[in-house]
Amino acid sequence: MSEIRYDYLTDNWVVIAPERERRPHDYPIHVYPTKSTPSKCPFEPGKEYLTPHEIFAIREPGTSPDTPGWRVRVVPNKYPALRIENQPERKRRGIYDVIGGFGAHEVVIDTPDHFKHLHNFSIEEMKELLFVYRERMKSLYGDKRIHYVLVFKNYGREAGASLIHSHSQIIATPSIPKNVDDEVSQLRKFFRERGRCYLCDEIDYELNDTKRIVYENEKFVAYCPFASIVPFQIRISSKFHSSDFSRISEEELYSLADLMRTVFKKLHKTLINPPYNMFIRTRPPERPYPEKPDYFVGMDSFFHWHIEVFPRISVWAGFEIGGGWYINPTSPESAAKFLREVLL
Amino acid sequence: MSEIRYDYLTDNWVVIAPERERRPHDYPIHVYPTKSTPSKCPFEPGKEYLTPHEIFAIREPGTSPDTPGWRVRVVPNKYPALRIENQPERKRRGIYDVIGGFGAHEVVIDTPDHFKHLHNFSIEEMKELLFVYRERMKSLYGDKRIHYVLVFKNYGREAGASLIHSHSQIIATPSIPKNVDDEVSQLRKFFRERGRCYLCDEIDYELNDTKRIVYENEKFVAYCPFASIVPFQIRISSKFHSSDFSRISEEELYSLADLMRTVFKKLHKTLINPPYNMFIRTRPPERPYPEKPDYFVGMDSFFHWHIEVFPRISVWAGFEIGGGWYINPTSPESAAKFLREVLL
Repeated sequence: MSEIRYDYLTDNWVVIAPERERRPHDYPIHVYPTKSTPSKCPFEPGKEYLTPHEIFAIREPGTSPDTPGWRVRVVPNKYPALRIENQPERKRRGIYDVIGGFGAHEVVIDTPDHFKHLHNFSIEEMKELLFVYRERMKSLYGDKRIHYVLVFKNYGREAGASLIHSHSQIIATPSIPKNVDDEVSQLRKFFRERGRCYLCDEIDYELNDTKRIVYENEKFVAYCPFASIVPFQIRISSKFHSSDFSRISEEELYSLADLMRTVFKKLHKTLINPPYNMFIRTRPPERPYPEKPDYFVGMDSFFHWHIEVFPRISVWAGFEIGGGWYINPTSPESAAKFLREVLL
Repeated sequence: MSEIRYDYLTDNWVVIAPERERRPHDYPIHVYPTKSTPSKCPFEPGKEYLTPHEIFAIREPGTSPDTPGWRVRVVPNKYPALRIENQPERKRRGIYDVIGGFGAHEVVIDTPDHFKHLHNFSIEEMKELLFVYRERMKSLYGDKRIHYVLVFKNYGREAGASLIHSHSQIIATPSIPKNVDDEVSQLRKFFRERGRCYLCDEIDYELNDTKRIVYENEKFVAYCPFASIVPFQIRISSKFHSSDFSRISEEELYSLADLMRTVFKKLHKTLINPPYNMFIRTRPPERPYPEKPDYFVGMDSFFHWHIEVFPRISVWAGFEIGGGWYINPTSPESAAKFLREVLL
């Protein structure tokens, strides 16, 4: 019997539909090996002249920017959705509201290796990538006109990736994106009613219930949310309360890298190289909002950063787009079991 | 220069990104002709035994249910997400909220012709399909446990259609889907501030501005919304105020059929057979909500039904899923111009 589950964190409802039950091998969408060769790839070492000038990199000592020797490299997006040169002014156009296309749009080249992806990163490589995410967040928040930094990754064509070579993206926006703002509202509401962090409760509950746990280590945990809106959705978070990803410590980065490496290996093996999106959901930085004076009160207490992984093995159709509800044909209990038990 | 536009109706923000400008022929996603043959199709006349028993049909006089002679036929979905036999009880499960999988999930077989789709429907065929949508809405609202009826259509694999033969779907839910509830909130807010219908304002503005109009006739209009969240998004609505699609008159159905037929022809020709989702956004029926006593006050004055068409020629990626903002690389002004000027 199907049931309709609620995700408090994101205010989403999902129909878990066992009548439509699908196991890992029933999902036909995979990232297939392609004929993409390093020789034509703008993200290869030695091809640095094909990208805009680098903003940041982890490099071998003594090597120069825009030359080989980097292990992770950040460049501006060649076709940016938002630009730092634009003005973040809010204006009226006829009956409509418009904000100038101010912001930043960066590309993180995750690795110099054309054939390597998160599922075959070493812990050290994963740690350096997470370190770069943290550093870019901190740096971008130095510009007080930036109200949010969204770090995300698209893997595979169905997830929106246009290049094979492993890369992530960073978009900094002049106001808080809707899904982040919605989550702030939910977590604030819970905190005002109960005086504690909702996600701490959820993580505690999941660790005790165990059914939806994918993997855990000392500091972090990965689980399939009770109301997963897509099959094999994975939520990654810290067992300790922490609102701001940009304040994660070196030691925590290492522990998170261990967990993420395992999670991506499991996902890759269970779903046979699925496309996916990943993003970091962290608290927005404090900025003055005269129209919402209480916006940041208690933020560090009620917000809890997390990383979400959305395999793109099913298609959102008219019900999801029209209704804003979701149908998920694989229960998160079943998904977590497959992910937990897969042999690596 | 890119800009960030706001859609008041749906509370969505979208980055209109001319740096990434794409014209119709730059979108590589099309619905390709397939080898699908009528002989294996469960929606063919003569194959009625392959579907559950019919719920409703428009038929030739003297023909019996579940036999040929129908022009539009409605059957239960063989793999329903929600079922009328389940109970709509709201329960707690651990720390989570769950509603029983009560509801209805129907399939509308739009035409007996295996090779016909909305873009080659006659006005009469389109009118009969819209008539069936209206009749199913009215009938399902007879069950007071049903709080919303979502009528939608998926065309093409990328839009979630698993069968080629033209069909629509109807899902009736035990509470109001999120996107509908969000729109109710937006329209109520506007009405309480201004005393009028937001969408009437928007339609009036668009008819005067003309830049985003795709097609209009005496009673209806189709335009690309100012903050279209996908390329070539089309909003269809009535020039007169009307909150409830299920109360549309016969004469209005005919006029709407004329407009929709033209719109789907234009879309098909401009984007070379794109996949798309379509859905009807109409007011929810009045039901008792003790926790929200004012929910329906003024609903007929502030809600305005509309139909949305979302071509699925681009992919939502980490920015859209993580941020809940959208990037649209084709401005609605440009999309509307292509759609307006295409030769039929």
